[in-house]
Amino acid sequence: MKLRVYNLCFLGFGNVNRTLVRLLEDRRQELREHHGIDFRITGIASRRLGRIAHANGFDSAEVLAWAADAESGWSRTKVSSPQEPQPHDVRSWLAAADADVLFEATSLNVETGEPAIDHTRAALEHAAHAITANKGPVVHAYRELRDLAAAHGKRFLFESTVMDGVPIFSFFDELPAIHLHGFHGILNSTTNLILGEMETGMTFDDALKKAQALGVAETDSSHDIDGWDTAVKTAALITVLMDHPIRPHQVARDGIRDLTPQALRNARRDGWPFKLVCRAKRVGDEVRASVQPEKVRATEPMARISGTSSYIYFETDIFPGLAITEENPGLYATAHGMLADFIRAVG
Amino acid sequence: MKLRVYNLCFLGFGNVNRTLVRLLEDRRQELREHHGIDFRITGIASRRLGRIAHANGFDSAEVLAWAADAESGWSRTKVSSPQEPQPHDVRSWLAAADADVLFEATSLNVETGEPAIDHTRAALEHAAHAITANKGPVVHAYRELRDLAAAHGKRFLFESTVMDGVPIFSFFDELPAIHLHGFHGILNSTTNLILGEMETGMTFDDALKKAQALGVAETDSSHDIDGWDTAVKTAALITVLMDHPIRPHQVARDGIRDLTPQALRNARRDGWPFKLVCRAKRVGDEVRASVQPEKVRATEPMARISGTSSYIYFETDIFPGLAITEENPGLYATAHGMLADFIRAVG
Repeated sequence: MKLRVYNLCFLGFGNVNRTLVRLLEDRRQELREHHGIDFRITGIASRRLGRIAHANGFDSAEVLAWAADAESGWSRTKVSSPQEPQPHDVRSWLAAADADVLFEATSLNVETGEPAIDHTRAALEHAAHAITANKGPVVHAYRELRDLAAAHGKRFLFESTVMDGVPIFSFFDELPAIHLHGFHGILNSTTNLILGEMETGMTFDDALKKAQALGVAETDSSHDIDGWDTAVKTAALITVLMDHPIRPHQVARDGIRDLTPQALRNARRDGWPFKLVCRAKRVGDEVRASVQPEKVRATEPMARISGTSSYIYFETDIFPGLAITEENPGLYATAHGMLADFIRAVG
Repeated sequence: MKLRVYNLCFLGFGNVNRTLVRLLEDRRQELREHHGIDFRITGIASRRLGRIAHANGFDSAEVLAWAADAESGWSRTKVSSPQEPQPHDVRSWLAAADADVLFEATSLNVETGEPAIDHTRAALEHAAHAITANKGPVVHAYRELRDLAAAHGKRFLFESTVMDGVPIFSFFDELPAIHLHGFHGILNSTTNLILGEMETGMTFDDALKKAQALGVAETDSSHDIDGWDTAVKTAALITVLMDHPIRPHQVARDGIRDLTPQALRNARRDGWPFKLVCRAKRVGDEVRASVQPEKVRATEPMARISGTSSYIYFETDIFPGLAITEENPGLYATAHGMLADFIRAVG
């Protein structure tokens, strides 16, 4: 098999993209042998680290050590190349890195989707594939970016935005000529973990601290707690899979702040535990969507989705009920979604 | 979009392929508009009906009426074309039909996989895509047929062989560079339906009759009852997804004949209902596989797979637990798997 080498750029260099670099290195041999793919890391950019680009490629281990040092406030290490002045904006950075693929993993702006949309646009206009773990571009600019990608003969992919990289969007590529009537599910780990802990008597604050200690919840967890994360994921699924663009604020939304440990314990005891459930349903030309705590029957699959697991149930015309459960995603789950997008894009 | 027209041939013309013809007609407009695909039905062959071929295409409605009449012992209708002598073997039939795609849906021979393997080989050698709902070619000749397809630049696809066309095999195409350690699940409708009915007190014979009346069980149901159907599906999954060829008789197999209504009722009452469970696990260079009635905890997802629903749980290195549930598959589920294979093959 003829080996094709791609220049990879990483924008946002937190957990997701660093794990992706590790996973790429781990699977390098397999990518070569089974997919005829090799890669060079030619650009790293983040708010904290600035932008570096080197079209001949950085050493992965060196880049990871440098980023870890910078994060802990040290500046002991340096990446050994290059010495030339580094680019000041995303477009010149992509050019300096001679990017073939951009992995976008900056943090989400729910209201506007920026600057991730602009990053994605820049990549596609540079004729690089744009792969994002950021839901902003999907819920705020899906059709524009999809069409822009097509115009440049490139791909705009985002498998890691929902269910940690489980191939939900791609699953529907494998279900052509099918009509999705609606779906429901559990898509947010932080709230699901907190609800579970509160059922056993923990206070909300302690449960939240536990979720943060496990690295599941962000320091600012209101995005999860108030249901925004689930609402954005719901909007992303509706926009892409139901071909119906919808913004996060159009999803009727209620978070888990008003639930007490007592109420949660009683509900579980009575066989109707609370879950933060997303729902979408096509009604005429509209799609109605909601995210809210719901009591679900204990015998329902959703009732046993615990901890960081997630679940989605699709109603289609051919398959009346088709569900995917993800139990205890591993460290590499989200990164794998981006790796799979990479293989899809260049495959 | 430029419309590409394909000549379709159907070998075996029972429920599956007839439903496929109906589904194809139903989705013709969508195939044209969204996939740039159109089709002609140029060949029908079955043990009962013989072989007809017409490179200019038959009328679908006419072909279905003719087959239905023939099945009910009438010979009122005739397909209006062609008048020339009809081919006597599969190869000359494919040639006369100028086949681009063969849909193979003959009945399964567990021991040898024939004659479906030969049909598939004939199609690929004719440079037609081979799409089968028959598990025989997968468990007895997967590698040969896969390589033969590649040599002719065609596809050998079989998404309808497991879980009625739910894209299980394709799901793993969307999970590149992942290692499957094992799986377990419920894959046979007949036995699952019978076990459910017997739990409510029905005798085995009555439950079997009910399954037959619903069109789920075959007249000769021993293939299902003795676990062969599940064993063959298990072997197909292992062969393809774990890249480990295994024959059905290498799967440790036990059916449901020895279970009494009393035992089933007690087990369900005690919270450990019986299910006919398949399991596969990689152990060193081997894969151990079994199909047998197992008591599963009532809170386990498998315990609530009822009727004709099915379930599979995959253990992988990246996603520790990834499960797909299919609830109450519709009439078109299996046919849809073949339609999706068609789109995959020519897409």
